[in-house]
Amino acid sequence: MAIKESTLDALFNPESIAIIGATPDEKRIGGRPLAYLQKNNYKGSIFPINPKYDVITGLKCYGSIAEINQTIDLAIISLPKNLVLDKFKECAENGVRSVVIFSAGFGEVDEEGKQQQEEITSIAKKHNVRVLGPNCLGMFNVNKGVYATFSTILEKQTLIKGKIGFVSQSGAFGSHVYTLARQNHIGLSHFIATGNESDVDVADCIAYLAQDNETEVIACYIEGAKDGEKLINAFKLAAENNKPVVALKVGTTNVGKKAALSHTGSLAGSDDVYDAIFEQYGVYRAETIEEFLDVAYASAELPIPKGDRVAIFTVSGGVGIMLADQLSERHLSVPETPQDVQEKLKEMLPIAGVKNPIDTTAQLNAIPNLLDDFIDTVLGSGKYDSTIVFLAFTGLMPEVLEKRILTLKDISNKYKDIPLITVTLNTEESKKTIIDNGLVLSDDPTRAVNMLKALNFYREHFNRKLDESEKKLKQTISISSQSSVLTEYEGKKLIQQYDIPVTKERLATSPEEAVILAKEVGFPIAMKGMSPEILHKTDEGLVYLNIDNEKDVEQTFQILKNKVDNIQDAQFDGVLIQEMLTDDSVEMFIGSKSDPVFGQVILVGMGGIYIEILKDAAIRKAPVSVEEAERMVNELRGSSLLKGARGKQPYDVKALCNLISNFSQFIANAEDSIQELDLNPIMVFEKGKGVKVADALITLKK
Amino acid sequence: MAIKESTLDALFNPESIAIIGATPDEKRIGGRPLAYLQKNNYKGSIFPINPKYDVITGLKCYGSIAEINQTIDLAIISLPKNLVLDKFKECAENGVRSVVIFSAGFGEVDEEGKQQQEEITSIAKKHNVRVLGPNCLGMFNVNKGVYATFSTILEKQTLIKGKIGFVSQSGAFGSHVYTLARQNHIGLSHFIATGNESDVDVADCIAYLAQDNETEVIACYIEGAKDGEKLINAFKLAAENNKPVVALKVGTTNVGKKAALSHTGSLAGSDDVYDAIFEQYGVYRAETIEEFLDVAYASAELPIPKGDRVAIFTVSGGVGIMLADQLSERHLSVPETPQDVQEKLKEMLPIAGVKNPIDTTAQLNAIPNLLDDFIDTVLGSGKYDSTIVFLAFTGLMPEVLEKRILTLKDISNKYKDIPLITVTLNTEESKKTIIDNGLVLSDDPTRAVNMLKALNFYREHFNRKLDESEKKLKQTISISSQSSVLTEYEGKKLIQQYDIPVTKERLATSPEEAVILAKEVGFPIAMKGMSPEILHKTDEGLVYLNIDNEKDVEQTFQILKNKVDNIQDAQFDGVLIQEMLTDDSVEMFIGSKSDPVFGQVILVGMGGIYIEILKDAAIRKAPVSVEEAERMVNELRGSSLLKGARGKQPYDVKALCNLISNFSQFIANAEDSIQELDLNPIMVFEKGKGVKVADALITLKK
Repeated sequence: MAIKESTLDALFNPESIAIIGATPDEKRIGGRPLAYLQKNNYKGSIFPINPKYDVITGLKCYGSIAEINQTIDLAIISLPKNLVLDKFKECAENGVRSVVIFSAGFGEVDEEGKQQQEEITSIAKKHNVRVLGPNCLGMFNVNKGVYATFSTILEKQTLIKGKIGFVSQSGAFGSHVYTLARQNHIGLSHFIATGNESDVDVADCIAYLAQDNETEVIACYIEGAKDGEKLINAFKLAAENNKPVVALKVGTTNVGKKAALSHTGSLAGSDDVYDAIFEQYGVYRAETIEEFLDVAYASAELPIPKGDRVAIFTVSGGVGIMLADQLSERHLSVPETPQDVQEKLKEMLPIAGVKNPIDTTAQLNAIPNLLDDFIDTVLGSGKYDSTIVFLAFTGLMPEVLEKRILTLKDISNKYKDIPLITVTLNTEESKKTIIDNGLVLSDDPTRAVNMLKALNFYREHFNRKLDESEKKLKQTISISSQSSVLTEYEGKKLIQQYDIPVTKERLATSPEEAVILAKEVGFPIAMKGMSPEILHKTDEGLVYLNIDNEKDVEQTFQILKNKVDNIQDAQFDGVLIQEMLTDDSVEMFIGSKSDPVFGQVILVGMGGIYIEILKDAAIRKAPVSVEEAERMVNELRGSSLLKGARGKQPYDVKALCNLISNFSQFIANAEDSIQELDLNPIMVFEKGKGVKVADALITLKK
Repeated sequence: MAIKESTLDALFNPESIAIIGATPDEKRIGGRPLAYLQKNNYKGSIFPINPKYDVITGLKCYGSIAEINQTIDLAIISLPKNLVLDKFKECAENGVRSVVIFSAGFGEVDEEGKQQQEEITSIAKKHNVRVLGPNCLGMFNVNKGVYATFSTILEKQTLIKGKIGFVSQSGAFGSHVYTLARQNHIGLSHFIATGNESDVDVADCIAYLAQDNETEVIACYIEGAKDGEKLINAFKLAAENNKPVVALKVGTTNVGKKAALSHTGSLAGSDDVYDAIFEQYGVYRAETIEEFLDVAYASAELPIPKGDRVAIFTVSGGVGIMLADQLSERHLSVPETPQDVQEKLKEMLPIAGVKNPIDTTAQLNAIPNLLDDFIDTVLGSGKYDSTIVFLAFTGLMPEVLEKRILTLKDISNKYKDIPLITVTLNTEESKKTIIDNGLVLSDDPTRAVNMLKALNFYREHFNRKLDESEKKLKQTISISSQSSVLTEYEGKKLIQQYDIPVTKERLATSPEEAVILAKEVGFPIAMKGMSPEILHKTDEGLVYLNIDNEKDVEQTFQILKNKVDNIQDAQFDGVLIQEMLTDDSVEMFIGSKSDPVFGQVILVGMGGIYIEILKDAAIRKAPVSVEEAERMVNELRGSSLLKGARGKQPYDVKALCNLISNFSQFIANAEDSIQELDLNPIMVFEKGKGVKVADALITLKK
């Protein structure tokens, strides 16, 4: 899996930068990168290029890239659109290693622009030049002082070095989030806007950041990926390096998708599948801009907690209850404090709420050291993994705030493994003070809850074993058939070879054979007419159930044959003689479909109305391990039915999860041949009694 | 419904205020109300009471309430707990009309305190004094300058007059929200903390604010109501006066409920029922503190939109997509701009996104009047009901901001009926500037979306016709029975009288009679053994289906009788002869249960696993109108099944809704007799073919 030394180093960490279209006017697009580089003391060499000047802001100015007698790591092209292609060619031919193209007017506007963009892509490939853009705001690498951007957001602000690498498929969105981060004193390692992605795309950037030493957290804004496999590999790389990834993905609804299509022309793909991919590869999906930044910030500044137990300290009983509710709704636990802790707290303050939420009441302000002693006593019990301290509007009271900060710093230092989030209203000044003191801060209690939710999401994902099933060598399975659909008989014969248990069944081609096979299978039996031209047997009346004697077998054979013969263009393959499944069972559905971005994904749901009416399905990219299959089953709203709800015995979930994993492996291996595969229904019997696929429909790729 | 002139006027709008325990030290609890009243130029008379002083801050000081020779509207008691009861008695006996008690140590601490609190309640009733508290932070009425509170939040801040009446069951929570409001330049009409609610409770306050001329929006923080009916009446009063109510209710989870119980000792009741009550009576339930205040603020400052169509203006395509997604997820519509509007916009700016979201791009800053012209063109089409304008970080750029404010003010004035929310990052200063200019502002796009969601919630609720069924005179239905449970036969005979259609059925007490009745009902029939002692007939093997001949009827009668006779203490009432329901139908469930706070509530769900496993139920307080019943059905996740999913014909939803409404009316009238009533299953037939209750179980109150 490890990607070799990144070819993107020249782009994101260049030792030399040429600016094609440089000007001394720092208000102009071609002037800004130069000004930013100089202002921020970029350590490498800068080569302004503009035939109009000999010198710009003290630097020798060149007429063209060819005039510079050294290999350039990065060239920035800041020129009118019609000049871009020529200048880019010049770069490529002169060995420039990477290029950022600001100019717009390419793939995002018309067919001509699209063709020119494709030419950029092919030149880049041919000369092994990496390209960011066109139509892009560029990027900056804060720690190295690299500023290949014309964004005005840097004009007035000093940058904060940080651990968050931020990559955005939208420049304006990126600028906004950057500004919000700056306002909240949150630092970045990189800012990258990918623009039209003629070469370098969001997945490349994530993979780069996953390997960058200065980056500990990756935040990505996504409208749509072109190459799903590449995106997944980038997510995997981040997970392997224990770097939390937070994503904001838009186009969740049809309305949003339509808007996305007209924004960047990117095909959004199925949002459900993105959801599944994020869950499967440990990417936390933020719902709002605030949450996006909050989660990146908390992940960068706080340790991953060791467990899900949260201690709440509050000066308001009401907010304490609200926090307990919200943590609990997000599947975190708020366990009661141990008895001895309760007694100690009561001793210090009889009117305190001591069970968790721990309510210090307003007495906090009357008793010195109360907060220190309370938190120390509770966290010292070893029963909590993270904590929220709600201080109401202490941030507006400078004299009190100072004391609280000292306390919370001491506590954070003493309990280094326990993430602590301070919640208080703030002035601009107090916010800066608190953050400068190394505390993680939120204005709003619910936002703190979501930070802990995300940290716990990462804990769970980092703890998961590497997906074993993925380590199997991928063995391509090819299926050849004259028809585009396999009959139930053919399909089940095929999947049976890959450890997928199916009903006991034989194919009979004459009434006499049907009788022999029926006895072999054992009465009662089901009989189904087989024809590759008929997808839905029930609709055509080709399914007969509960046949329990030889005479009926013979007669039914004849009826089924006649029915198939009477359907135009339908070839008769025979009659399937199948055991009846009469044991108590739960019906499930497993299907696969080919996603345009991510390839074969599998769907698991309870049978019938659950999946059709309630859309209650769990989705993953194939293949999945048995453990991942179990998580899929647990995701289903109806899954309690499998575990023995309504006073019934539990069903064989283990066998079901094995089946799901085997199915996913099969579908991954047969990806090139199979378009769609539905197993429906699958009967899950009582615990220990296994599962059986009762019907299967395989549609092949053309 | 109209409540007579509020008896709470003396409390919330007093013309004279006595402060028992007044001191000149404004840092002390007894000093603060006096200081606040004087600082804020309270227009009425102030009477400090404290035997230690002759004069306090220039006012004559009295030794006791009796010394003042006039009727006092409001007395504030700020004394150590042990003095409270005596002084309160003195107030009551001296004709004081209302009292605020700050002191703690009553119902919230121990049994003794609880008894003393009960004494306060009974004295208050006897003397017709209204009491706020004890253990309460008090209240203030901003417009009248009434400050009956010791909260420190008023120490340094000047108050903003506003239209939001805010009532909180928690003082600390209230102070926090008040401070947040102040920080965001949001004014209040009233702030009321209800404390232990020995007399005046949250419902009283809502009802008062619903009738107060200065209050246009009511915000309430609720931990638990004691009297559900009173709370509902308060909500109704607010709705009648077209005043939006926003609630933050905590204790949503078991964890939170436990915390609530140990906080104020209030029984939280079922949170699902609160949810239902809020939905039914048009109260918007906020999930977070930010949303709580945002919704109150937006409702106070913006008109209720005429429809659900939102126009999005954005400087970032990405944020535009996100807004479209989020609006759409909240069931608001983001319709495409009309063709002619698109053409006009394209003319002004060819690179703009013109379909909605309308993306002005960063060209906004290059072309004067672009924003004005864009918004005017789009809103002028008459196709939009509300709008969000996303300006990224314009709030940080004072020179640009000034122009934007002018534009948006003009637009708001021109389109007075269209709520407009401006979204931008801000400094403390720019926030103030924008708000002072009368614009509604949000820092975050999603928060603006939630504001519009709430405004649309109120639009829908205010548009609903008054619930007709509630206008029916309540006729008490009494049911007497020796048993605590009615048999299916008795139960269905009873409900049939109240327009609830049931299966055709007769009760047979002998085999011969069974045969006669079976012929009357018509073969095939179902037969069920009846005994008031047996609640679950199927479990006892007392249900036989599809009996189609006389001989089987006779035999089955005997089998059933024997079975019942063999069950200890079970009385045999006979055998129910029932038609078989064979037509295509969907199974539903309707039940009622008695909520400790709100009385009889009804539950509607799809039959079987839907309600048991998926908890997919709609809940309301009984009774409900047919329209409300329809909303209940539409809330169900599985409701598309009723409307003809899976290629089937639609079912008789109209008949179902009539049934639900009739059932709810019956249950409301029989509230005193019935503990629980389950109709399960109800068969809903094809459209036009009606519904039938197939089984009913009535449990009576002891």
